[in-house]
Amino acid sequence: MKLSRFGARITGQSGISDLMDDLGDALANKPEMIMMGGGNPGHIPEVSKCFQRLLQDLANDAELAHSTVGVYDQPAGDQSFRQKLAAYLSGQLDQEIDASQIVVTNGTQTSLFMLFNLFAGPGEDNVNRKILLPMLPEYIGYADTGIDPALFHSLAPKVEPTSAHRFRYRPDFEELSTLDDIGAVCVSRPGNPTGNIISTPDLEELDEFAKSWGVPLIIDGAYGLPFPNLIYRDSKVYFSDNTILTLSLSKLGLPAVRTGIVVAPKAIAKRLATMNAIMSLAPASLGQALMSPLLEGGKLDALCAQHVRPHYLAKRDALLEAADRHFQAHGVDYEIHEPDGAMFLWIHFPSLRISSQALYEMLREREVLVVSGHYFFFGTSEPGLHSDRCIRVTYSQNSDKVLAGIEIIAKTVAEFA
Amino acid sequence: MKLSRFGARITGQSGISDLMDDLGDALANKPEMIMMGGGNPGHIPEVSKCFQRLLQDLANDAELAHSTVGVYDQPAGDQSFRQKLAAYLSGQLDQEIDASQIVVTNGTQTSLFMLFNLFAGPGEDNVNRKILLPMLPEYIGYADTGIDPALFHSLAPKVEPTSAHRFRYRPDFEELSTLDDIGAVCVSRPGNPTGNIISTPDLEELDEFAKSWGVPLIIDGAYGLPFPNLIYRDSKVYFSDNTILTLSLSKLGLPAVRTGIVVAPKAIAKRLATMNAIMSLAPASLGQALMSPLLEGGKLDALCAQHVRPHYLAKRDALLEAADRHFQAHGVDYEIHEPDGAMFLWIHFPSLRISSQALYEMLREREVLVVSGHYFFFGTSEPGLHSDRCIRVTYSQNSDKVLAGIEIIAKTVAEFA
Repeated sequence: MKLSRFGARITGQSGISDLMDDLGDALANKPEMIMMGGGNPGHIPEVSKCFQRLLQDLANDAELAHSTVGVYDQPAGDQSFRQKLAAYLSGQLDQEIDASQIVVTNGTQTSLFMLFNLFAGPGEDNVNRKILLPMLPEYIGYADTGIDPALFHSLAPKVEPTSAHRFRYRPDFEELSTLDDIGAVCVSRPGNPTGNIISTPDLEELDEFAKSWGVPLIIDGAYGLPFPNLIYRDSKVYFSDNTILTLSLSKLGLPAVRTGIVVAPKAIAKRLATMNAIMSLAPASLGQALMSPLLEGGKLDALCAQHVRPHYLAKRDALLEAADRHFQAHGVDYEIHEPDGAMFLWIHFPSLRISSQALYEMLREREVLVVSGHYFFFGTSEPGLHSDRCIRVTYSQNSDKVLAGIEIIAKTVAEFA
Repeated sequence: MKLSRFGARITGQSGISDLMDDLGDALANKPEMIMMGGGNPGHIPEVSKCFQRLLQDLANDAELAHSTVGVYDQPAGDQSFRQKLAAYLSGQLDQEIDASQIVVTNGTQTSLFMLFNLFAGPGEDNVNRKILLPMLPEYIGYADTGIDPALFHSLAPKVEPTSAHRFRYRPDFEELSTLDDIGAVCVSRPGNPTGNIISTPDLEELDEFAKSWGVPLIIDGAYGLPFPNLIYRDSKVYFSDNTILTLSLSKLGLPAVRTGIVVAPKAIAKRLATMNAIMSLAPASLGQALMSPLLEGGKLDALCAQHVRPHYLAKRDALLEAADRHFQAHGVDYEIHEPDGAMFLWIHFPSLRISSQALYEMLREREVLVVSGHYFFFGTSEPGLHSDRCIRVTYSQNSDKVLAGIEIIAKTVAEFA
């Protein structure tokens, strides 16, 4: 097979394809596997019922059913959906958002593939710009998105202890001041894999750096603000005239509709809509049609506050309690990133004698699937001390199994530390 | 705004973005415009009812509703859908198709963006390969998909008169024998914009050329075989062990679900699934869920044969009759490509004294929207005589308006020829 350089690289062995192969293999051959690896949202009965009702309403309205499956949207998404969303966001972001600032895509993965390659890579002025990830670890899904093979410039974080067995990462602003040739800055907030929520002052400082370079600050809000609101620490949504906010319907409970949303300055939104046309023609309509009725009368916020957020918060608290108990019972040296948001615990084992990948393999043998932390450190040759001693565990799935899983993790780490 | 070279080019003024801007402007400011430009499928009441019923069935089944919106598919698409589709295609293609040969994408535009850039551009061996379009005119939507700015190598067609005021394009095989550095060969079949259906012997010859270069033959079957079957001339679906067949649910009546299907050799399908994961994470589920019940018991073929195909065939015949009548009444020098498939008439005006773009603008003034033929000639510096004297008119929309539109076209061309 004769492949382009880009094609060979993007389809070759990568973190994400390794993981998927492994996951597929585990699912096929080990039905008892405890799934604490992937990012599938939990099944929340009230939320499923809500979306089923919305789907029924849509299906029972001949005109709406036809427009949802039978008429192409504009490349930026349905105009009336974008207007409703703009009105909703204007309330949330405390500033006027116009429909022309909104582009609907086929999911956040597609949003970021487009944005990263719009801003980074060899430039019109022959400068080779990078996407700056100012605070590793960052989302594994970004790692292979570059048309240019070295798309990212990533910085190791500062580690700040917060209390017994707890810490937080923060951006290292001294490192930032030495950089140039940046095309855009990107952070996930809440962070995947850590659950970190970068503070507003830190975001403002990142935004100032971005402005000083004349580039945008991309905030990947897939887990967060203003929805699905998997936020467990007092935090506000951040938006400035230099911000690109990417949102998703996935963690609200709609991962299979593949709807991503980008809120950006108008000139960037216009570029992105053209890119959407060329790469996807138009976004899928279903997610927009299901969301539309929720954008009015506070329904979306109520769904998040009453069902989505409490579901994950309860699971987080249960896993956190069990983790502390089992790790301490087995004498494990551990620290957990403050789980301020999202659906993950990010656990650091300072005395681990094996690599996090070896730990992952050991755990897989014992039928617990986690993600080795090393995947989340890319775009740098100096990833820092945490890069080989952490794992990410997901608490979105069935609680009993997850609680059994954390005990197996505690026992296993105790053997190798 | 600092953009990558790729980003600046793909989001700059291009055929497709010009067209979209113009279309948006026309829709906003000229409500009486007769739309014979775009590719929206027609509204077929029986088909809309069928899909509404399928949507209701899905919405009323709590488990199915949840899996359709609430659970990520695998990157290649839902396994059970791919198995059903493989069984259906095995019957249609007269050979065993395995589910592992099928990848579901977010639409044909995305399928081809991935395939073109997988095979063409600078190669691992430093050879810069091209996508060969062996017979212009070709689909405008391909034109801007290249990560590499010069992705295509296109050949002008041979023109064969068939009867009074009719002709067909054929590939110029002598030209093909002089080529090298090809990464893949691609044809739309039925052709967009011409409605041409390349004959099986000609396809076999193209496939032989592709094999001699060690590259695949991509057949874009969005309008065709085996579904939605907008085929008006005895033709068979073509598939070999060197073929990549791309299919779409759009022209069946489901453009807004954004579901594309790629059938390929297993090794290529595996690469494409990885590319899908990195660019889109997973495909949207709705199109697969709606199609699944139709794949059994001959339902899909019956829907196409009883409703989809007859709808377009009747519209084609009506427009063709009106075109001959009005062109001849106004003494227009014209020839129409044999409308063997799809939903377009491709009309050549040999004596046109203005460019096809100028004709388009004139017609827009008179509230008839068509597409200027020059957009469909790209990837060559020698597009041939037809490249500036043709228009594409779509017959999928409201018939009375379309019939009024063709008379305005006849009068206008008569003034400028």
